[in-house]
Amino acid sequence: MKRTAQTHHPIHTLLKDRWSPRAFSDKPVEPEKLLAVLEAARWAASAMNEQPWRFIIATKKNPAEFEQALSCLNEGNQRWAKDAPVLIFTIVKKTFTRNDRPNRAALHDLGLAVANLTLQATELGLHVHEMGGIQIDKIRETYQIPEDYEVVTGIALGYYGDIEQLPEDLQEREKGPRQRKPLSELIFTGTWAKPASFVKNNGT
Amino acid sequence: MKRTAQTHHPIHTLLKDRWSPRAFSDKPVEPEKLLAVLEAARWAASAMNEQPWRFIIATKKNPAEFEQALSCLNEGNQRWAKDAPVLIFTIVKKTFTRNDRPNRAALHDLGLAVANLTLQATELGLHVHEMGGIQIDKIRETYQIPEDYEVVTGIALGYYGDIEQLPEDLQEREKGPRQRKPLSELIFTGTWAKPASFVKNNGT
Repeated sequence: MKRTAQTHHPIHTLLKDRWSPRAFSDKPVEPEKLLAVLEAARWAASAMNEQPWRFIIATKKNPAEFEQALSCLNEGNQRWAKDAPVLIFTIVKKTFTRNDRPNRAALHDLGLAVANLTLQATELGLHVHEMGGIQIDKIRETYQIPEDYEVVTGIALGYYGDIEQLPEDLQEREKGPRQRKPLSELIFTGTWAKPASFVKNNGT
Repeated sequence: MKRTAQTHHPIHTLLKDRWSPRAFSDKPVEPEKLLAVLEAARWAASAMNEQPWRFIIATKKNPAEFEQALSCLNEGNQRWAKDAPVLIFTIVKKTFTRNDRPNRAALHDLGLAVANLTLQATELGLHVHEMGGIQIDKIRETYQIPEDYEVVTGIALGYYGDIEQLPEDLQEREKGPRQRKPLSELIFTGTWAKPASFVKNNGT
């Protein structure tokens, strides 16, 4: 299933074709693909090259570990993420290692790494669905996350499955239109909320 | 100047070739390229599709606006960012518009958008250098950033210039090796700090 974004300006195919499905195939992700996806995350930029990102991974190859990870999602996400072959929790170190001071950019830099991961996954024919709906306290306890680290998101990773495998309400959401705010609401010049001059009057 | 990452696993060329230079050419960025780069950011994923990212942009086409933006960087960054044709400040909305509740993922989602922007820039032959070193209070005041929004980073965007244009100390930094932690320090399974089984003993 393709859901290519209807862009106003041409962008790279991998960015246009990326979307977040719920209907995952249970086909395993090949270890070399998993490594490539994580390697992509590894090479993101970060403030002071701190590389604040950490990933906890569970695959169906180890059913007990997978069940443990699945149980740490919110119930709404468990309904469909149970079919994905790989679950990941993303975590950041909140301070700079060199001086123990707060790293204001840590979450932002995690986002850079996750976008790299997602792009590499897309390139390899895989899909990524990020989830804010996770049980953070349970994850902290289950995986013994140290005090100085923050649990941010869950990720389901795998090949696309069949929309028919989803409950009906989720089938509808899988097919809905992909929408974004116009550039005129996002890009300002000179002062807040003043659209940049190179953005057209129709907002694109 | 190329500084392709020495990866342990094959990753997409655009991710390998991305790096953050200081020696920018003063060649302007074509408006259609600027729009493509911002369009790429626009199509990132976000929690509840909130799209919390905002960008304030200054180009050398408007020298007063550029000088204003430049003066909002830390002095160390002004030394080289003065040569870039485009400066951007990244900002996030800290709450969900639908219910005014805190958006825990806002900074992370901004990172997703900035990584998309960076990838599109790389694809178009441009370079991006993100800066944590910015004068946040001055930016808030200069651009009248609303209470509910947080200023996160600055970005210099443009074509690569000539390393010789940099002060000597920055020339050295421009040439240093690109280093990252091994996967074994980033990817865990089952519990914290336990390297995933698919990561090799040498950490790759």
